[in-house]
Amino acid sequence: MGEFSFIKWIRSRQKRRSDVVLGIGDDCAIVDVSSDRLCLITTDMLVDGTHFDLKRCTVKDVGRKTIACSISDVAAMGCEAVVAVISVCFPNHTTEKFARELYEGIWSIANRYNIEIVGGDTISGSCPLCINVTMLGRDNEKKPVRRSGAKAGDMILVTGTLGGSILGKHLHFEPRLKEGLALNRNFKINAMIDISDGLTADLNHILEESHVGAVLYEDKIPVSDDAIKLSKKTGKTPLYHALSDGEDFELLITLSKAQSRKVLESRLFSDTLINCIGEITTGRGIRMRRRNGSVYRVKPQGYEHLKS
Amino acid sequence: MGEFSFIKWIRSRQKRRSDVVLGIGDDCAIVDVSSDRLCLITTDMLVDGTHFDLKRCTVKDVGRKTIACSISDVAAMGCEAVVAVISVCFPNHTTEKFARELYEGIWSIANRYNIEIVGGDTISGSCPLCINVTMLGRDNEKKPVRRSGAKAGDMILVTGTLGGSILGKHLHFEPRLKEGLALNRNFKINAMIDISDGLTADLNHILEESHVGAVLYEDKIPVSDDAIKLSKKTGKTPLYHALSDGEDFELLITLSKAQSRKVLESRLFSDTLINCIGEITTGRGIRMRRRNGSVYRVKPQGYEHLKS
Repeated sequence: MGEFSFIKWIRSRQKRRSDVVLGIGDDCAIVDVSSDRLCLITTDMLVDGTHFDLKRCTVKDVGRKTIACSISDVAAMGCEAVVAVISVCFPNHTTEKFARELYEGIWSIANRYNIEIVGGDTISGSCPLCINVTMLGRDNEKKPVRRSGAKAGDMILVTGTLGGSILGKHLHFEPRLKEGLALNRNFKINAMIDISDGLTADLNHILEESHVGAVLYEDKIPVSDDAIKLSKKTGKTPLYHALSDGEDFELLITLSKAQSRKVLESRLFSDTLINCIGEITTGRGIRMRRRNGSVYRVKPQGYEHLKS
Repeated sequence: MGEFSFIKWIRSRQKRRSDVVLGIGDDCAIVDVSSDRLCLITTDMLVDGTHFDLKRCTVKDVGRKTIACSISDVAAMGCEAVVAVISVCFPNHTTEKFARELYEGIWSIANRYNIEIVGGDTISGSCPLCINVTMLGRDNEKKPVRRSGAKAGDMILVTGTLGGSILGKHLHFEPRLKEGLALNRNFKINAMIDISDGLTADLNHILEESHVGAVLYEDKIPVSDDAIKLSKKTGKTPLYHALSDGEDFELLITLSKAQSRKVLESRLFSDTLINCIGEITTGRGIRMRRRNGSVYRVKPQGYEHLKS
């Protein structure tokens, strides 16, 4: 397989969007942004051995994950995903079948969300499979939701269940794009983030950007079945996994008590679990409140790259 | 060094643009595109051992090259570069000094061209240094110039000199952003590309997209001093290097005879060499015309990834 014939193949298979003026195959892609006000950009790099393990999953799984991670970032702003560019460094001697299967995985998600792959870079090197996705989104009437808007008194909501994603969810999760858009469109969300580093680590990003703290309710954390399963292997508690494991790609939301009640009572999310797990405080840091009312400090924990 | 403290450092050092609503540090960056019509996107991945060799260059050189490659793609559309997101996979045990020097190289170019780094992803893995830049550009009154507009009868111009970039230019080239913008603004350019794969390989991209062919004038190819120098080591001719070597990042342009004359006579490019090296034909493929008028076929040659 050569790079140019592979690009031709991608180009022939790619579904087109009407606002993409020029897709794959030139020096740049061109998107018509005349009806937009704001353009969102997010980028994610995934490498074999760190974000996935090709000994334990298919390359199609990898393609799927790689694009789903970026969609999750756009979801966390409450906005629409539009186009993506994808760079891949294939290990030397990659077969055409392998390369095509990666794209089958990418399209399995991209097509469903009407995201056009408008370009990329395909290289090879003496290295493990490394993929980078940059995704562009657009604001959808409502302003993008940032991490920095949390206010003392806000309630903290989270979608889905948490922990143990390494057992499978980190590959097969559904990005919460629909939920992020619906939340931003129908409610006044003060801050939002997707849980990629871990609940406490990502909550801490909101707290730092918003200059506030938080109390979490120990008995309200939605511990997943996989967190329980994993805890039997690791000897750690299921709660530890729910608080610290990365890559659940659920949405973490803060909003006023009144708005929070409206979200929980709404029928918008009939097939998505949403739980209130705590509140934003003026006092800094993260504390955990037990059912009996006693409180203890929690150190934000999760995956951090480059940490020695 | 930790990922989050490194991101904080980048954030504190980054110069801001007024049209960037939200820079580094959230799930997505936000750019105000309300005054634009078209948004350009290009992405480039570079990996140690293929695009650079850390045994022979500094990491600052790598940062410089990585952003300059993307600027060159925007230049090849005759447009303005605006913002970039940068993903880096550092080899495990990377020092903070090394990571910071990479960014010093990036900023040495980005700041000069008023390009804001609005986000990125910083990861680590068991792999050589791998960097991905995605750059956004905007149309600047004039439409972006594509590869597909070359017409039979067009003249072919090229900036600078060609060949032997491996001796240094591939790291230290100046992207032709100023030239690309000036060409698009002041003349009617039919097709344009930057020479990254090699003169004949990139010319071939224009020919294929435009469904035309070309004749090159053998004695008009601007062979660089480094092509001559390199030919003494490789035993190949300097012309071979000028035609086939990649990463010169010069602009290859096609436009009508009348427009071509205007470009060559204009004083816009007093410090940039521009040469007329051939013409576009209806007959397909690339042919070379010797000084004596005889003609031979040239096979497009240059670097192609994944080729076994």
